[in-house]
Amino acid sequence: MKEISNLIAYRPDVKVVDATMRDGGLVNDFYFTDEFVKALYLANLRAGVDYMEFGYKASREMFDENRFGKWKFCRDEHIREIVGENATDLKLAVMADVGRCEKSDIIDRADSPIDLIRVATYVNTIPGAVAMIEDAAKKGYEVSCNIMAISNVREGELKAALDILGRTPADVLYIVDSYGAMYPEQIARFVDMYMEVAAKYGKKVGIHAHNNQQLAFANTTEAIIKGVSYLDATVSGLGRGCGNCPSELLLGFLKNPKYRINPLLKFVEQHIVPLRESGLKWGYDVPYLLTGIMNHHPKTAIQFMKEERTDYNSLYLDLLDIG
Amino acid sequence: MKEISNLIAYRPDVKVVDATMRDGGLVNDFYFTDEFVKALYLANLRAGVDYMEFGYKASREMFDENRFGKWKFCRDEHIREIVGENATDLKLAVMADVGRCEKSDIIDRADSPIDLIRVATYVNTIPGAVAMIEDAAKKGYEVSCNIMAISNVREGELKAALDILGRTPADVLYIVDSYGAMYPEQIARFVDMYMEVAAKYGKKVGIHAHNNQQLAFANTTEAIIKGVSYLDATVSGLGRGCGNCPSELLLGFLKNPKYRINPLLKFVEQHIVPLRESGLKWGYDVPYLLTGIMNHHPKTAIQFMKEERTDYNSLYLDLLDIG
Repeated sequence: MKEISNLIAYRPDVKVVDATMRDGGLVNDFYFTDEFVKALYLANLRAGVDYMEFGYKASREMFDENRFGKWKFCRDEHIREIVGENATDLKLAVMADVGRCEKSDIIDRADSPIDLIRVATYVNTIPGAVAMIEDAAKKGYEVSCNIMAISNVREGELKAALDILGRTPADVLYIVDSYGAMYPEQIARFVDMYMEVAAKYGKKVGIHAHNNQQLAFANTTEAIIKGVSYLDATVSGLGRGCGNCPSELLLGFLKNPKYRINPLLKFVEQHIVPLRESGLKWGYDVPYLLTGIMNHHPKTAIQFMKEERTDYNSLYLDLLDIG
Repeated sequence: MKEISNLIAYRPDVKVVDATMRDGGLVNDFYFTDEFVKALYLANLRAGVDYMEFGYKASREMFDENRFGKWKFCRDEHIREIVGENATDLKLAVMADVGRCEKSDIIDRADSPIDLIRVATYVNTIPGAVAMIEDAAKKGYEVSCNIMAISNVREGELKAALDILGRTPADVLYIVDSYGAMYPEQIARFVDMYMEVAAKYGKKVGIHAHNNQQLAFANTTEAIIKGVSYLDATVSGLGRGCGNCPSELLLGFLKNPKYRINPLLKFVEQHIVPLRESGLKWGYDVPYLLTGIMNHHPKTAIQFMKEERTDYNSLYLDLLDIG
């Protein structure tokens, strides 16, 4: 019989990472107003959230700054305009995609408001990830490595990648279910694999889930109970396609009294409701379920939704064709 | 490490029970058009669904037939108008609430299109449930007993109730998370308790989940993997408040080749999309999350939604007051 004590007590090593602006930025091209960002920062602070991810450190060589909101680039001065010197317990994070950012944009931590660099990689760009992890660690940052789309990776390759990452200075290794394709039973198996490497090399393990099958929260709780400690969530699940594990659900589950749900409820009322009313669309729907089941990138579903189509069976047949 | 074989293979004893009209009837007072019902019947048939629940056998003494659609009462002749003699593999079910129906409305199975009587009871009306189970079994029906709101019941009482029900002719004992209050880890414990009684008395176990915490599907898959075989689902989760486990998700998960998702996708396109466009509201939202977390009946959340309020934090504080 499963242990109930895990549901009553809490693990003090658990950290909540708010990824609203980063994953949500993929929905609105990072055009968040300063008012929204400031309110989110304060809500996270009051809710006891541990990290807030502001967006990407995308290369301004590769991407046109006029075509995206500023949080795709997360210049330190823009972060400072929101948080000042951030003399708080809430740590700040940005994501740096292997091959889509410049090391020179990441200055010494001592001179930056950022605390955590999240290096995002596919399993076939691990050496690039290693270089970025080493660079960020040398500059004084906490570092996580988020291996994306692992539901499409062979187990042997993933194990090899984890073993390489284990020998880097990365503090956290992230399980990322990019396609929302995984069931809790599969998450449990990935957690076992990651935890073994984590134990060997003294790392923590994190999880970033997508909600294609209404399992983002369930997969996150499964991961918690199996020992994962870094938990990505976004307010109201705001994130690409069907979105992520909603922070409200996660904070409703966690028992550490440092977490408070009220500030998030107020933020939803004051900032998420208007965002939905403005026409921004995200969250579970049938097309995302279908790409999730089939372990596909959600782009086909996102396009289908954008065209306001409802011929779900045609989409299903098309996806079967892609294979 | 969790067994992956459960996700690849399938258990032939698993039965899918479509509760769209019964739980969904609580959203629209059972006013489904014949066209909708006929299309749902055909979709279920083609999808390989095992049972279709048409609604309640509510007492016409107690409830005014003019104030509800006909599926609150499920007269046999109304069912026949949809299914004829139902010469198919799809079995038909109705729900009979203890204290809110008349035994005389349940005629011999030989003369009825109905196959399964689902006796719904609270733990404090078990003797009434026993009488109804015995009556329905004597008349030749398959019988399930659905003990509602068990998240509010003390373990000792529930065990005593299960032991009494074990000695009745009921074929299936249902775990019902009426308030959407339970996490998969808790479902797992309930399953252990129910499976023990089921093994002792030769019963099957079923699950009926609600989606207040986006866990209806996750709780159902947890139950499947632990041995539960009767699975309630509703198309697009249509059901009271935040609704139920969506049939599309469940059929996307089950590996028995008899199940096909296509007919449901077409039904969603042709009948669920228009239902939503007509203004009928159901599905996950913050107010249901809050009643779920607090293990309350969803009625407060339903009222809050009806008033189109978004002051979630006030609702949260009100619910804390109710205790």
